[in-house]
Amino acid sequence: MTTAGAGHAESPFIRACRGQAVDRVPVWFMRQAGRALPEYRKVRGEGRFLDAIADPALCAEITLQPVRRYGVDAAILFSDIVVPLAAIGFGVDIVPGTGPVVESPFRRAADLARLRPLEAEVDVPYVIETVRLLVQELEVPLIGFAGAPYTLASYLIEGGPSRDYARTKSLMHADPDLWMALMDRLADLSLAFLAAQVGAGASAVQLFDSWAGGLSAADYERFVMPASRKVLDGLAGAGVPRIHFGVGNGELLGLMGEAGADVVGVDWRVTLTEARRRVGPGRAVQGNLDPALCLAPWDVVAEAARAVLADAGGRPGHVFNLGHGVLPGTDPDILTRVADLVHSEGVPA
Amino acid sequence: MTTAGAGHAESPFIRACRGQAVDRVPVWFMRQAGRALPEYRKVRGEGRFLDAIADPALCAEITLQPVRRYGVDAAILFSDIVVPLAAIGFGVDIVPGTGPVVESPFRRAADLARLRPLEAEVDVPYVIETVRLLVQELEVPLIGFAGAPYTLASYLIEGGPSRDYARTKSLMHADPDLWMALMDRLADLSLAFLAAQVGAGASAVQLFDSWAGGLSAADYERFVMPASRKVLDGLAGAGVPRIHFGVGNGELLGLMGEAGADVVGVDWRVTLTEARRRVGPGRAVQGNLDPALCLAPWDVVAEAARAVLADAGGRPGHVFNLGHGVLPGTDPDILTRVADLVHSEGVPA
Repeated sequence: MTTAGAGHAESPFIRACRGQAVDRVPVWFMRQAGRALPEYRKVRGEGRFLDAIADPALCAEITLQPVRRYGVDAAILFSDIVVPLAAIGFGVDIVPGTGPVVESPFRRAADLARLRPLEAEVDVPYVIETVRLLVQELEVPLIGFAGAPYTLASYLIEGGPSRDYARTKSLMHADPDLWMALMDRLADLSLAFLAAQVGAGASAVQLFDSWAGGLSAADYERFVMPASRKVLDGLAGAGVPRIHFGVGNGELLGLMGEAGADVVGVDWRVTLTEARRRVGPGRAVQGNLDPALCLAPWDVVAEAARAVLADAGGRPGHVFNLGHGVLPGTDPDILTRVADLVHSEGVPA
Repeated sequence: MTTAGAGHAESPFIRACRGQAVDRVPVWFMRQAGRALPEYRKVRGEGRFLDAIADPALCAEITLQPVRRYGVDAAILFSDIVVPLAAIGFGVDIVPGTGPVVESPFRRAADLARLRPLEAEVDVPYVIETVRLLVQELEVPLIGFAGAPYTLASYLIEGGPSRDYARTKSLMHADPDLWMALMDRLADLSLAFLAAQVGAGASAVQLFDSWAGGLSAADYERFVMPASRKVLDGLAGAGVPRIHFGVGNGELLGLMGEAGADVVGVDWRVTLTEARRRVGPGRAVQGNLDPALCLAPWDVVAEAARAVLADAGGRPGHVFNLGHGVLPGTDPDILTRVADLVHSEGVPA
């Protein structure tokens, strides 16, 4: 049984995150738990998503399912980025087919009062319990999960998913003081949420800034990076690798590393070779198979997975993953074969 | 009256496209015609989009509206990328709030027969007539408009707008021969559509590969670039600048230039300075104000527009534009002020 957050130090996943030599290329898949798995659909039923999150036995089971099925080198806590926001009562739900929907979006300074600090033991005891159950069960590292301040802010301000983030960008530029105050509260929230997961035994964390790729580098650096740095720096002493992920964020890779990441997530638009150049020495990379290709016939997927391995090129500090989450229609058998291919053909470094 | 496609050679817009010295920085806005304008909503009424396209007097009026209002340096034919597909009877409509919807998507080799060659004089006489009306009226260059083969293919295969292009990517990899045959037909279609517009008097063309940014550079180069090159090379002798546009396409800028562009469109994620480096010498750049910022208060917009001008830095070969189309909620007065700012503060080079 692992009880320290800094566990599994000798596992291929943790070693790769630290840029250390490994005996096999580690692999996991973003959104590996969930809709694509029949065993998930069976245990989940029709209940509310947030109710499943609040049920530690169920949430742990869902987290474990892909580890059993795929033989991946890490588990990731089954969660959603809005979980801590819902827990402090901001009024957010996850609507099937839509995503997070905020009842009363963030509009003005008075709304800051709706973002009280997260007291993890009181507000999300079920998450802590889920992590505890998982670290007892798992033989691979557990990755803790949180949304980054910008992506959280975009949901709070837009009220739900957005194509253009116009309200978010308008607020950040038109009222930088309010924006920075919002980001600072969200940084505290994300940090408290991740620290609680590490305290309960998570061996790594991933900070999801999924929508930061819609920003220019100048906007990212000025309006987003300080808050993300607060989260990542706040975990510097925890002894766990910190993965920092976005999508469509090729121009931000260097900054997302500098924000305090040990590992930078890379989508399929940028080669791993180029991503390493942008990220610079001393940080690992994670990625970057196009998840859309996993809906193609196996020969296509295999060729694409081999191309990722070749691009990673036997250099240390690579965690194999998709460039974004598993798409809903993905055949789980394809992912099993990808994991097997990475383990059998990947040249560890 | 201008009758040659190669007209307006001394206009700031055409000169900037050619990298020649200008006496003012030219500016236009993608989607400058349409929903954001009250005068558009007044003349358009509730009719079908494709019916408006088929009405030369109406379509010319819609194209002229933003030129009158904003004082921009170029008009762009009011159209949609699926117009030639609808004209050859593929079975596509434009659904308000959704976008192009294909009744019976492209699935197999037999569907190639549904993509017969475009005979512009027969299939889109109304487009030719619209262009003729416009070149009589306009005092600025008219830009012809067509979708690039990849973006057209993505609509044909997905059946409508998509988030992940999984079917499209699957087809290109799983059946490259069919894919290349499809792309070749679409290249012929786009080329015939643009050549007809140039023949009727358009002074430049823009090839919209709006969704190519979802592809890796390797996929773009292998599966998309040959067809786009066929379109752009096919217009090389026409004497008009060729603009090649995508969004989220930072990794593709060099290839999109090499495909045969005189001007490469740049979105706000990449600075113009970096875009010039990627595009290389001998090509101009167009962009790159974030359209989402145009929904912010004027001070924010002005600062952002000035940042674009500073980034362009008084080097020749810059056409000021947004990084993507005008968003529906944009206040037209903001765009008027942007055009004025570019004209009054831009340092021509």
